[in-house]
Amino acid sequence: MSSLGLAPALDHAARTVEQTLEVVLPKPHGLHSRIHDAMRYATFAGGKRLRPFLVLESARLFDVPVAYAARAAAAIEVLHTYSLVHDDLPCMDDDDLRRGRPTTHKAFDEATAVLAGDGLLTIAFEILADAASHPNAEVRCKLIARLAEAAGANGMIGGQMVDMVAAERDFGAEEIMLLQRLKTGQLFEFSCEAGPILAEAGLAEQERMRQYARDMGLVFQITDDLLDVTSTAEKAGKAVGKDQDHGKATLVSIYGIDGARQKAKEISDRAVAALEPFGDKAVALRELLPFLLTRES
Amino acid sequence: MSSLGLAPALDHAARTVEQTLEVVLPKPHGLHSRIHDAMRYATFAGGKRLRPFLVLESARLFDVPVAYAARAAAAIEVLHTYSLVHDDLPCMDDDDLRRGRPTTHKAFDEATAVLAGDGLLTIAFEILADAASHPNAEVRCKLIARLAEAAGANGMIGGQMVDMVAAERDFGAEEIMLLQRLKTGQLFEFSCEAGPILAEAGLAEQERMRQYARDMGLVFQITDDLLDVTSTAEKAGKAVGKDQDHGKATLVSIYGIDGARQKAKEISDRAVAALEPFGDKAVALRELLPFLLTRES
Repeated sequence: MSSLGLAPALDHAARTVEQTLEVVLPKPHGLHSRIHDAMRYATFAGGKRLRPFLVLESARLFDVPVAYAARAAAAIEVLHTYSLVHDDLPCMDDDDLRRGRPTTHKAFDEATAVLAGDGLLTIAFEILADAASHPNAEVRCKLIARLAEAAGANGMIGGQMVDMVAAERDFGAEEIMLLQRLKTGQLFEFSCEAGPILAEAGLAEQERMRQYARDMGLVFQITDDLLDVTSTAEKAGKAVGKDQDHGKATLVSIYGIDGARQKAKEISDRAVAALEPFGDKAVALRELLPFLLTRES
Repeated sequence: MSSLGLAPALDHAARTVEQTLEVVLPKPHGLHSRIHDAMRYATFAGGKRLRPFLVLESARLFDVPVAYAARAAAAIEVLHTYSLVHDDLPCMDDDDLRRGRPTTHKAFDEATAVLAGDGLLTIAFEILADAASHPNAEVRCKLIARLAEAAGANGMIGGQMVDMVAAERDFGAEEIMLLQRLKTGQLFEFSCEAGPILAEAGLAEQERMRQYARDMGLVFQITDDLLDVTSTAEKAGKAVGKDQDHGKATLVSIYGIDGARQKAKEISDRAVAALEPFGDKAVALRELLPFLLTRES
């Protein structure tokens, strides 16, 4: 498939993953239809589908058929969605709104939101275990192991735990970067490694894509923190100033606004450099960096 | 390995799975050690390890090496544990005690309990995806797919959803049996099918073991409901009379105490009959039925 620029590639990823999600998520049926409804409500909420984009574009670099990449993209998106559903719960971040709509526990109830999150996490692995995700079962197991590692107690969930600790003590720049690498970075890493894993490329290729993901994730986080400080709620489309309110250290609070912008620019350049061997195929992944640096929401 | 009677087989299963759990669960470390602590607290709580017993004994029938069965047993046990942790949450059953100890959200806090449950669910799939669980990746994928199906929105989680609906309306015997088959039966089915799956036996063998599991699960549930009505809290070691208090229909409320006992006996006989082809190898699985019929806690 020919390479797309960033905007059409994001659009392509959203359409592709939503088609796959429509197929793999259970249709509401039976006495337990409420769980199906809640899983779909949380999933079809108009997100940017950034992780599916990363999966599809990393797959493009290694000439992986879109059919396989689409399923890995669906798996990471339902996993990401579960993390949002649980994160929004009253005992966690206690958010009533997400993307302008009531959060799942508001639209349904808390128990249903807990179960819907559990169901989404479970189906992520079910999607990957199916032969439709790749003809080679070793590849499917590798994806499953990598996703479980990225999402588990030493990955994203570990990051959420560190985040809870962060509220109680002062973190330095190193600790903040570790937190971000776990909490949001791990799913980006999985997404970008999915391409080389599906292509059965070597560990060196996987490591290169992980480096790109790591840097891209840091830029994503720093610019998110910058938005939190500089944006208005209207532009960002969500509550802003939350980190400051909670007295939580971010790279912006440590480096200052200009220092953080500078840091983001440096890391962005390093991310782009990692893509060099892929030439034109990497155009969308490359364009993602300046997009993040200049985003307003 | 020679066949064991029920008591030594249960003891063997508990020791075997606990050794494996000790290895596969992360040791507490780093800024996020609290999540590791909570996962271990929930897991090492002195349960009966009934599901690991079913995995190990179903594996014995098909001459599966204990090393593989032990990992499948660990996977189902952490998955079962996650379901208890989330089930005990204030927004679900709101239980303060389990097996005489504070529940995970009481010993830690609600957010940690949500994350610990998520971490246990995630690691169940990580355990199965690892080559140590079986040399054939197709077998590992099959186990993962079967576990996800059993635990997901059309399995255990679906059952929990039906249970929430059950509190709002009247259920007949058929609906109650469906509920139980989903809510508690599905993990029993996975446990008993693990043996034939690990042995790469045919679908007929898998179906036979599923039939045993289905009937065994019904007997387990009916005797649990009977205990709820007839036992004292002291003997049962937990709160009793809960179903009656909540006005929830059970097979006991429909058939009466004697009728439910008679039903349990009939189903028990059918479960034992399913084991006939396995002769002496099935002694522990066979003895489980009269044990359930006469249990006092």
